[in-house]
Amino acid sequence: MPEPQLLEQLVEQARPLLGRGKVADYIPALAKISGNKLGIAVTTPDGVTIGAGDYLEPFSIQSISKVFSLTLALTLYEEPEIWDRVGKEPSGHSFNSLVQVELERGIPRNPFINAGALVIADLLQGRLSAPKHRMLELVRNLSGNPQICYDKEVARSEYEHSARNAAIAYLMKSFGNFDNDVDTVLRSYFHYCALRMSCADLSRAMMYLANKGQSLAGKQLISPVQARQLNALLATSGLYDGAGEFAYKVGMPGKSGVGGGIIAVIPGDMSVCVWSPELDLQGNSVAGTAILEGLSQSLGRSIF
Amino acid sequence: MPEPQLLEQLVEQARPLLGRGKVADYIPALAKISGNKLGIAVTTPDGVTIGAGDYLEPFSIQSISKVFSLTLALTLYEEPEIWDRVGKEPSGHSFNSLVQVELERGIPRNPFINAGALVIADLLQGRLSAPKHRMLELVRNLSGNPQICYDKEVARSEYEHSARNAAIAYLMKSFGNFDNDVDTVLRSYFHYCALRMSCADLSRAMMYLANKGQSLAGKQLISPVQARQLNALLATSGLYDGAGEFAYKVGMPGKSGVGGGIIAVIPGDMSVCVWSPELDLQGNSVAGTAILEGLSQSLGRSIF
Amino acid sequence: MPEPQLLEQLVEQARPLLGRGKVADYIPALAKISGNKLGIAVTTPDGVTIGAGDYLEPFSIQSISKVFSLTLALTLYEEPEIWDRVGKEPSGHSFNSLVQVELERGIPRNPFINAGALVIADLLQGRLSAPKHRMLELVRNLSGNPQICYDKEVARSEYEHSARNAAIAYLMKSFGNFDNDVDTVLRSYFHYCALRMSCADLSRAMMYLANKGQSLAGKQLISPVQARQLNALLATSGLYDGAGEFAYKVGMPGKSGVGGGIIAVIPGDMSVCVWSPELDLQGNSVAGTAILEGLSQSLGRSIF
Amino acid sequence: MPEPQLLEQLVEQARPLLGRGKVADYIPALAKISGNKLGIAVTTPDGVTIGAGDYLEPFSIQSISKVFSLTLALTLYEEPEIWDRVGKEPSGHSFNSLVQVELERGIPRNPFINAGALVIADLLQGRLSAPKHRMLELVRNLSGNPQICYDKEVARSEYEHSARNAAIAYLMKSFGNFDNDVDTVLRSYFHYCALRMSCADLSRAMMYLANKGQSLAGKQLISPVQARQLNALLATSGLYDGAGEFAYKVGMPGKSGVGGGIIAVIPGDMSVCVWSPELDLQGNSVAGTAILEGLSQSLGRSIF
Repeated sequence: MPEPQLLEQLVEQARPLLGRGKVADYIPALAKISGNKLGIAVTTPDGVTIGAGDYLEPFSIQSISKVFSLTLALTLYEEPEIWDRVGKEPSGHSFNSLVQVELERGIPRNPFINAGALVIADLLQGRLSAPKHRMLELVRNLSGNPQICYDKEVARSEYEHSARNAAIAYLMKSFGNFDNDVDTVLRSYFHYCALRMSCADLSRAMMYLANKGQSLAGKQLISPVQARQLNALLATSGLYDGAGEFAYKVGMPGKSGVGGGIIAVIPGDMSVCVWSPELDLQGNSVAGTAILEGLSQSLGRSIF
Repeated sequence: MPEPQLLEQLVEQARPLLGRGKVADYIPALAKISGNKLGIAVTTPDGVTIGAGDYLEPFSIQSISKVFSLTLALTLYEEPEIWDRVGKEPSGHSFNSLVQVELERGIPRNPFINAGALVIADLLQGRLSAPKHRMLELVRNLSGNPQICYDKEVARSEYEHSARNAAIAYLMKSFGNFDNDVDTVLRSYFHYCALRMSCADLSRAMMYLANKGQSLAGKQLISPVQARQLNALLATSGLYDGAGEFAYKVGMPGKSGVGGGIIAVIPGDMSVCVWSPELDLQGNSVAGTAILEGLSQSLGRSIF
Repeated sequence: MPEPQLLEQLVEQARPLLGRGKVADYIPALAKISGNKLGIAVTTPDGVTIGAGDYLEPFSIQSISKVFSLTLALTLYEEPEIWDRVGKEPSGHSFNSLVQVELERGIPRNPFINAGALVIADLLQGRLSAPKHRMLELVRNLSGNPQICYDKEVARSEYEHSARNAAIAYLMKSFGNFDNDVDTVLRSYFHYCALRMSCADLSRAMMYLANKGQSLAGKQLISPVQARQLNALLATSGLYDGAGEFAYKVGMPGKSGVGGGIIAVIPGDMSVCVWSPELDLQGNSVAGTAILEGLSQSLGRSIF
Repeated sequence: MPEPQLLEQLVEQARPLLGRGKVADYIPALAKISGNKLGIAVTTPDGVTIGAGDYLEPFSIQSISKVFSLTLALTLYEEPEIWDRVGKEPSGHSFNSLVQVELERGIPRNPFINAGALVIADLLQGRLSAPKHRMLELVRNLSGNPQICYDKEVARSEYEHSARNAAIAYLMKSFGNFDNDVDTVLRSYFHYCALRMSCADLSRAMMYLANKGQSLAGKQLISPVQARQLNALLATSGLYDGAGEFAYKVGMPGKSGVGGGIIAVIPGDMSVCVWSPELDLQGNSVAGTAILEGLSQSLGRSIF
């Protein structure tokens, strides 16, 4: 466990980076967030969470939700039912590209690009009567925070700008890789993205990745092998088109969201969440990445 | 350190897979290798090497040489001189694709696809008077085996089938990302690929990746941070278009070659080399991958 | 004007080709058409129509409707309002590809690929209160046949298999190049495709292309310059990915549909329609193309 | 035949466009040409040539040579020997793209993009002992001007910047679609491009396209059918990625070069050449296109 002072120090070292990136502005509800936010929380397997900066302030988790939805799918389906419909390889393309989905005949490269996450959302829709409710329950249980809720304004705003994701879903449907009504799945999907959680919530919720599939509350959510596999997928595909650079600099499996959050884990050791809304060109938090890089260097810890 | 019996057992368990893949046949010199070969060697930081199967028989290391050439470049250049000319991201395309090189204006995605390795070979050519000699010296020193040599027939055969690699090199030259004479660099590059080493040689030579940059002979080849970074690159881009699946199943940074070899490391713990010439559709050894997967499961060890 | 015997002869010469192509089967309503149909009709500016084979039997005109919808748009909009939203260049890609639409940021290459025709349908929707009614009126007037109607079963069947076209429309919407409700426009678009017309109907309706924009009934539908320009677009982009081969072999501006029809014109001279449902790999009628090639050779006429 | 005054007038009308385009600058030898040049020549089947502006000044014909080399190949090979190795379809990509050549496994889309012209140059090399000499002889005979020669400086300069074309040639070689030594063929190819001819020379040389394959001197160079087919190819693929727009505005089969020349024909009527070195974004002469558009409108003549 890092010292609390270390976290404070990492936050302060990253503060000069504010202004270097750009807050996501493709939907109004996200664009109005202040770019000055900066926070980190670390949770250890014994359940202790420490943090610094704005680590208790909830933010829009956006694509970080793709980790939860894949995890939920793993609890509902046999693995081949999932991996026949979505791959495990890095995409080498922008996260919302249709080119690859067309060239590879409707099979998205991995579950963390939009196309892949939409397939996972389609799977959840196919087996849950109330997927939005079930997802909320999951993240509340995992983080131990019953206050977590959806930001309805963000969900609605995303839905109003959903043409690109609708195009991806219909393209997969044209290849036979989308079962449910596109509109219904999109509404669920945008709700998952619109979850509001703090760094503390997320670092606690992600502990199962660092602790062989076991949640903080002691529940075996997925098997140890699955937890290991999920970390492998995050390491190769968790940061859009910046996964290689992130592995190179930070050396932890991680997942970012355009809300500026990034979660990362050191298996056996800790789960971490950083937040700062300004993004780089790949869509990853500038200051957040820097804090994680500093943490990795300070602790001399990485998976490599 | 795994028990020697475990290695024997893993080799025997993988033997039924022989016949499931296809020996590389794009050059005659490789096509004539027997597909029945099967071997593994493991080396620990204390210098002990154990093995099973055909682990002492030299084979053509092919793309595994890209790890050595990048390492050699790291000893000759400042990092920005390298990373301004080649990226760190997974490619999402076949290893010898020109599409991405054209779309990304001459900058290859990473140093382990052919385009990237050619840039590295160009860098070596630019700063070494006798790069082939220097490379041979390097791998002899790293493995402690002065018998290692180039397979001249393989090198010549590759050169005679070099049109695709020539196209890649000229394309990069057209974007200003290739300095030396294409023909000269290709000849060096094919020599590196034509190194003949055994599993034992390779597992010993790669120890610096598992031991913070320090070779078996105690030489600090690259810094601990660089060794960590190299492992990160291998984890995201080391297995062509199968890096995600390999991370998912094996969970170690690794690099494969079309000669059927795969090297992998568990940092701090061991370096491994497996060999079996039959390849899957991504160009990775079928039985070799299975042996590594078995090793990872048996030891309960992976980086994730 | 060709002799009637010539048309008979061309039909008989093409008959041995039956069996060489494949009836479109992507929707059940089209798949059930007999592949044995074969017909040609030729109309001259003086209003005489002659034909051979099944030239009086109505068939599904499919993409030939794209000529009518573009023509209708030309009567409703200023040219820049159209050409700012759709290009004039051959696509070099399959007719229903999303790749190019994504790479060129939502602007389809030309009005005869699906993406372009959907933009045109969106334009019609934007300015007509009853576009389907207006289109029907147009083709009835142009051909002088008040019996022409929509095949409701085909339109419904297309709608039920509309995922690919929905994906294209949403993709353009995501780039701001689609104004109306996607579902509404798709329903109109599929109706246009589901028009049932005979070779005689089509050769008569297309006379305005051969006669400087003037219909058989003497109405100046579009200007002479526009008619010339429309022919130019048909010559470069009218036959999907087979436009070059068609120009090479037949040498007339033309437009094909997956129902097996092809219209073609020799400006100043004649408008032609052939029909035979079996298609080649590019989606163009095998026997239909052969009949047109024979006609061009027999008359020694082509635009080149 | 247009009146000489008309040509003068068209040149003056186009003069205000000077400054709107950009002289090709990828090789120094071309970049130093004055952008102010402007000329047109028209030749009729009876052998009369009239002109205006700088129509007697020789310039670098560049890609216009691709028409001559294809024609020469047609006199040396059976058609399938040519069309098995190069297609007849518009490319939909930039003229020097490798993407399409890779995706379509080494078969260029048409003989007028660089890849296709290199295949044609490879064919010429395969059957002629002195292809450069033979080409020079051909254009001298066709134009009736024995003074025409190669600009050795341009040829050398192109060769020194040949990396992109070398990449294309090697890529085709890797697919088995390039027989001769790449370097030798490139040298020939750059010579063809470096021919210096005036508008008068080119309009006279291209008469065979307008006159059923017969040259001004009365020689049947290619058959009437081949002349018609060549015109069809020019109409669909002669102006790089601007063929559709050119057909739309000018309505004649044509071929442009980055030296600023454009040739065009009205079959049966006339062959034309315009020249003005400033190019648009597609690489076609800005003022040259405008002059041809004016000519087409003034004469009320086009093939459509």
